[in-house]
Amino acid sequence: MTNIPAASIGDNWENIDTPALVVDLDNLEHNLTTMAIYAKQHNVRLRPHSKSHKCPAIAHQQMALGAVGVCCQKVSEAQVMVSHGILDVLVSNQVIGRTKLERLAALALQAKITVCVDDLTNIQEMNEAAKLFNATINVLVEVNVGSGRCGVLPQEPVLALAKAIRQSENLNFSGLQAYHGGAQHIRSYEGRRRAILQATYQVEQTLKLLTMHDIECDVVGGGGTGTYIFEATSGIYNELQVGSYVFMDHDYALNLNDQGQQNNEFKQSLFVKAAVLSKPESNRCVLDAGLKAYATDSGFPVVYGIENAEVLSAADEHTNIRFDSTLPVPNLG
Amino acid sequence: MTNIPAASIGDNWENIDTPALVVDLDNLEHNLTTMAIYAKQHNVRLRPHSKSHKCPAIAHQQMALGAVGVCCQKVSEAQVMVSHGILDVLVSNQVIGRTKLERLAALALQAKITVCVDDLTNIQEMNEAAKLFNATINVLVEVNVGSGRCGVLPQEPVLALAKAIRQSENLNFSGLQAYHGGAQHIRSYEGRRRAILQATYQVEQTLKLLTMHDIECDVVGGGGTGTYIFEATSGIYNELQVGSYVFMDHDYALNLNDQGQQNNEFKQSLFVKAAVLSKPESNRCVLDAGLKAYATDSGFPVVYGIENAEVLSAADEHTNIRFDSTLPVPNLG
Repeated sequence: MTNIPAASIGDNWENIDTPALVVDLDNLEHNLTTMAIYAKQHNVRLRPHSKSHKCPAIAHQQMALGAVGVCCQKVSEAQVMVSHGILDVLVSNQVIGRTKLERLAALALQAKITVCVDDLTNIQEMNEAAKLFNATINVLVEVNVGSGRCGVLPQEPVLALAKAIRQSENLNFSGLQAYHGGAQHIRSYEGRRRAILQATYQVEQTLKLLTMHDIECDVVGGGGTGTYIFEATSGIYNELQVGSYVFMDHDYALNLNDQGQQNNEFKQSLFVKAAVLSKPESNRCVLDAGLKAYATDSGFPVVYGIENAEVLSAADEHTNIRFDSTLPVPNLG
Repeated sequence: MTNIPAASIGDNWENIDTPALVVDLDNLEHNLTTMAIYAKQHNVRLRPHSKSHKCPAIAHQQMALGAVGVCCQKVSEAQVMVSHGILDVLVSNQVIGRTKLERLAALALQAKITVCVDDLTNIQEMNEAAKLFNATINVLVEVNVGSGRCGVLPQEPVLALAKAIRQSENLNFSGLQAYHGGAQHIRSYEGRRRAILQATYQVEQTLKLLTMHDIECDVVGGGGTGTYIFEATSGIYNELQVGSYVFMDHDYALNLNDQGQQNNEFKQSLFVKAAVLSKPESNRCVLDAGLKAYATDSGFPVVYGIENAEVLSAADEHTNIRFDSTLPVPNLG
């Protein structure tokens, strides 16, 4: 009696209780297939980021379409994926502290595990954890190629860490993590192209330096839903870590393509179904979904399929919506 | 292997894995006790809103301190509370549609259930659902006293709905819901006082009209953590629906009291414990908690206890923090 699901498998749309998070499976499959075909055609590996869905069933669909594995952002997420049979996981993030490092090492006995680093002490502690479990952990050096988040600067700092990894008995140096998060939501095509061009140049220079020291990179990873075409055609990146394309959020859809138009190669597949709770004015209604049903870090949600229905405000379980005077306000329910 | 808790009962602070949502029990108890004493001293009933905690254990603490029941914002939450022995629940919201109305009616066989209405058709459908279960549902008319969200306007519209409820065999008219959400976060004491003064006046006029029609209100409910002192001392409101005081969020703490100073009668008791994941620059670090660990509808979180540590940006699992040059950046972990 503590958790009543909004719907059961096979329920009609009308019978799904609100608020509910719903997936359009046709659009989802379109997105999964489109990206898989693109990666194959451009001869880059596809390792989708699973933090957008956190769902082993979708990860298995991605694997069936040719993905080499998935990314997770946390060890706990990687544990879920491995326990559900996804046996090649990149934790595309730093893993800090003994508790998490030992969990990561234990996981490396069950699956191929790769992780990012940007710190020497962390490399040493990771090697010790791996040794404890007699495991081998694959390691990418994270390069800050413009995001200004984690990662070391290109060239010499990368080389220093790569050498340290190669000297660590239970670590395997696998290459570079060069994701440019800051470029993903730049609206203009040219702006995104230039940002990834700069990132690519920095990665290329770093690869040259590593080659001079006889260090080869199996993986040069990066690329998000906003920029993947630039990484895929760079001749430098060989692995895409796209995640958002699966559900294709509204904000990504505002990015412009080379024709100056909104991208539409991916279709939104994730929605919050809500119902009208109150209709206090002739041009205003209140929905039964609010801040606890959706995220607002990219702004208020957009009412799907009703133009000029404007979100005025949101509370925990309410969304206040004003309708254009030419539009009828829906009835309660 | 799918859910590893960040901590177990009895764990030391140091052993709580990050990111983790942690409660300071001393501060929590201080808050619960302070509000309970205030309500008793001012002779108003206390019906805390449970949407801030959604936790039956805390609801039981509130009941033990004298609360008459709790508020929930959704039927599904009310079901959880009732199934855990909280037997007087106000769903302080509209409940629309047959599925939810029938769940509400079934619940009214197990506990005293009250709900808000602002629509005539909804009253009719609610009565039918209650009749089906041979249950009685208590009903408050929600009055829009300034929030501009749900609710009907004061006076005549309230009277019309009150009459309709009284004519419904399986509904019991209990009074008014007159919560002013828009007043809660007004910074100045005088601004909040004036907003509730206006709300109180509208409620008072409505009560007079109802009395002229021999309709009595058992409940006149409202009041949030930002304004409860004004409702409690209004002589009109008799039930407080405060919720946020339990954890006392940062934004409420910015409200000023009658001395022009920040309120401190309640203490923050809910925190996200995070760890340093990366230290890429001498004055910058990245934490392992991000948009999936905290809400940002009132802005970025604040680093507790470290002044001038400024949150620059946040991503799904990262928070980018810049330190004042006079402050040392913490080490990894």
